[in-house]
Amino acid sequence: MDIQTYDVVVVGAGPAGENVSDRAVRGGLSVAIVEAELVGGECSYWACIPSKALLRPIHALAAARRVPGSREAASGELDVAAVLGHRDAFISGFDDAGQVRWLEGAGISLVRGHGRLTGEKFVEVERPGGTTALTARHAVVLATGTRAAVPPIPGLREARPWTSREATSAAKAPRRLLVLGGGVVAVEMAQAWRALGCQQVTIVQRGDRLLGRTEPFAGAMVQEGLEDAGVQVVLRTGVRRIDRPDPGGPIRATLSDGRIVSADEVLVGLGRQPATTDLGVDTVGLEPGDFVPVDDTMAAQGVSGQWLYAVGDVNGRALVTHQGKYQARALGDLIAALAGGHPEDTGPWGRHVATADHDAVPQVVFTDPEVASVGLTESQARAAGHPVRTVEYALGDVSGAALHAEGYSGHAKLVVDSDREVLLGATFVGQDSAELVHAATVALVGEVPISRLWHAVPSFPTISEVWLRLLEEWGR
Amino acid sequence: MDIQTYDVVVVGAGPAGENVSDRAVRGGLSVAIVEAELVGGECSYWACIPSKALLRPIHALAAARRVPGSREAASGELDVAAVLGHRDAFISGFDDAGQVRWLEGAGISLVRGHGRLTGEKFVEVERPGGTTALTARHAVVLATGTRAAVPPIPGLREARPWTSREATSAAKAPRRLLVLGGGVVAVEMAQAWRALGCQQVTIVQRGDRLLGRTEPFAGAMVQEGLEDAGVQVVLRTGVRRIDRPDPGGPIRATLSDGRIVSADEVLVGLGRQPATTDLGVDTVGLEPGDFVPVDDTMAAQGVSGQWLYAVGDVNGRALVTHQGKYQARALGDLIAALAGGHPEDTGPWGRHVATADHDAVPQVVFTDPEVASVGLTESQARAAGHPVRTVEYALGDVSGAALHAEGYSGHAKLVVDSDREVLLGATFVGQDSAELVHAATVALVGEVPISRLWHAVPSFPTISEVWLRLLEEWGR
Repeated sequence: MDIQTYDVVVVGAGPAGENVSDRAVRGGLSVAIVEAELVGGECSYWACIPSKALLRPIHALAAARRVPGSREAASGELDVAAVLGHRDAFISGFDDAGQVRWLEGAGISLVRGHGRLTGEKFVEVERPGGTTALTARHAVVLATGTRAAVPPIPGLREARPWTSREATSAAKAPRRLLVLGGGVVAVEMAQAWRALGCQQVTIVQRGDRLLGRTEPFAGAMVQEGLEDAGVQVVLRTGVRRIDRPDPGGPIRATLSDGRIVSADEVLVGLGRQPATTDLGVDTVGLEPGDFVPVDDTMAAQGVSGQWLYAVGDVNGRALVTHQGKYQARALGDLIAALAGGHPEDTGPWGRHVATADHDAVPQVVFTDPEVASVGLTESQARAAGHPVRTVEYALGDVSGAALHAEGYSGHAKLVVDSDREVLLGATFVGQDSAELVHAATVALVGEVPISRLWHAVPSFPTISEVWLRLLEEWGR
Repeated sequence: MDIQTYDVVVVGAGPAGENVSDRAVRGGLSVAIVEAELVGGECSYWACIPSKALLRPIHALAAARRVPGSREAASGELDVAAVLGHRDAFISGFDDAGQVRWLEGAGISLVRGHGRLTGEKFVEVERPGGTTALTARHAVVLATGTRAAVPPIPGLREARPWTSREATSAAKAPRRLLVLGGGVVAVEMAQAWRALGCQQVTIVQRGDRLLGRTEPFAGAMVQEGLEDAGVQVVLRTGVRRIDRPDPGGPIRATLSDGRIVSADEVLVGLGRQPATTDLGVDTVGLEPGDFVPVDDTMAAQGVSGQWLYAVGDVNGRALVTHQGKYQARALGDLIAALAGGHPEDTGPWGRHVATADHDAVPQVVFTDPEVASVGLTESQARAAGHPVRTVEYALGDVSGAALHAEGYSGHAKLVVDSDREVLLGATFVGQDSAELVHAATVALVGEVPISRLWHAVPSFPTISEVWLRLLEEWGR
């Protein structure tokens, strides 16, 4: 068996794995990155990139139709073939050559194959031609991400459901699509495929609202947007069983209330599970199938010695690409610092910790309306014991929004620590609200007090003027 | 003569006058506001609102045409009549009844007519029916704004040029439009009228670039955008004279290089002059025609006693609506505090001062591409003696931008105090960059250091991810 030694071995070449490798190499270390599928990972081929590529033309056309003058010019039909072709261009036809070139340019060694821990600082990579054993002098980093969860609903797995992968890569719209769940994948893909030709899209969600982890008004407004687009939303309803008698034929879903929904495909948007089932984590005392528990330096907990880390979705801290990359930058620098005998910077907001994972994780849901949020919701903040005061404002009452789209409908809310008078969270819902949230992230991370935010004047007439309105609601 | 006494007399009912009045009333004072034209002022009827109403459909249509799929659906012609009708709706057909209702609701007394200072705490209002004398117990606030400057170019005034007022309110596009100047009014209106039917739009600008007060790349990219839209841009060229022999006929401009440009209208975008020529400021020792010099509390300098203030454009600190409103909030609260015997809060970033006027004035130019900036440019920062380091990034290389528009072209730059490692300025140029700048404003006003900004993670794939790229350029 071929044995190779590197300073660092990273398992998983998605954005988090790439970033930790890059930072470690920049810190002077040698790095091998192991990938069983495509370099670039889920985000590049089956998630953020293709989903946004599918949604952007839908939103751009809707935006043009909401303004007198451009409305009349934008009365044609969305060109579905062009949308799908554009999506295909963004995922490079599932060819990762560009990403491999990036690895090479960054000085990172790629080992293709399925990687498994086999003990302290050991990773074995199974590949078609045989097995490669990798030894890490300093650290092994797990960055294998998550896979779509397929819960044990009778008949579901046998019906070969769409997961986020099939939903972002499908070559054509099914005539009828049934969507299970009400999270990001569910709402974004329902929006996309309805516009791309599905005649019937039905979301079935057990909970009492869509986007259950966001402020309640966000789910309600997205539901309204989806319904306006012709998506049917069924809340407070589970699925008793799924039948697909003919493998190429339609599926039949029996809901918890006894109703039957027929569809041509069923998409499971029922959460994610960590890709740790076949990763050898049991050889170092961790539980396969669980998220890898880590501290703020991404060091795996319950493992002896300081050599095993986990970044990105696989640690379960924040299942969004950007936060995984953030963790990865901190960790790559930490591993290089420790290897070089340099000091750690692991206090709160230090260079080698991912403090923001607790307090300031932003997320954008690219539906129409968009939902852009960061930090804690009101209920999360209260549950965490913070003294809370909130302010809200109808985004459509901001001049910049009214100019942006006729009848602009949106809503904004700030969650404020009423003792310290600093932000705990913010949520913006509305067309093109995606870029509004970074100002809140900066305010939150910078712990900028409300009294100082009064001096951060939004430009008139931008939609950002909602900040002024929210402060006016707070009072001077 | 009718004599009325109020706690505060405000001259000028634009956004700054309205806001200072509102804050003073909320502080328990009686306020009379004097307006010779329309309540709501320049911004509502002849500037921000109508210009954005004219430009938004142009941008929305261009955006839809830059994405495969929506491009094909948006191949119709911009409906010029619909655009103009929408603009007319936003300016309420020059009827200020809605604004008057707002004044009434806020408890502010409106006195229509032309107001002039006649001495300490005295304002006379000339109106069709006679004259009203207003006496202020505590303060007189000048908020008369600016008017378009019409410089002494031979023949220009006689040619009855368009100013920003005519350019934002015209009922139809002239066949050929000559634009003098390269500032915000010039570039926005050139963009608008070219799209709204002008066959020929020519910008003649004495300086060596457009938007001379912004980063040089901003003017260059706007020039490229205008030229792509069919606008001709002539730099480093003045105008020797303007001739309009027939009052209803075409104009003929003789440029400094001897070239002749013919046009059907000429727009002067050559700056603003304070509306202080007929305001009675000479009665209190100030110079008519000059901006009213003020300190950070907006108190007029060179006037005896603490009773005269100036807010908004008329003080020349920052000629943008939002900054005038900001000054007005601080001043209204200060006047109320002083009148009530409450303490002032006039230290830097205090509640009663407009500290951000020096350091953190944002501005958005709604051309295609948009220019969104705040704080100091690199050259301004160096001239002010700051230790400066800058970082730049091509906005089109951000995934979120590439997904937003095919071939997205844009640029971002941060100007950083290299000792304190805090922002001094930021500029974003690109389609839909308007909402990017508020994050920079918060970072600047909050004095959030670069090391902390690394924890403010932008959501993937938004255009805001340019923040990560800029930080990467800075280095960890």
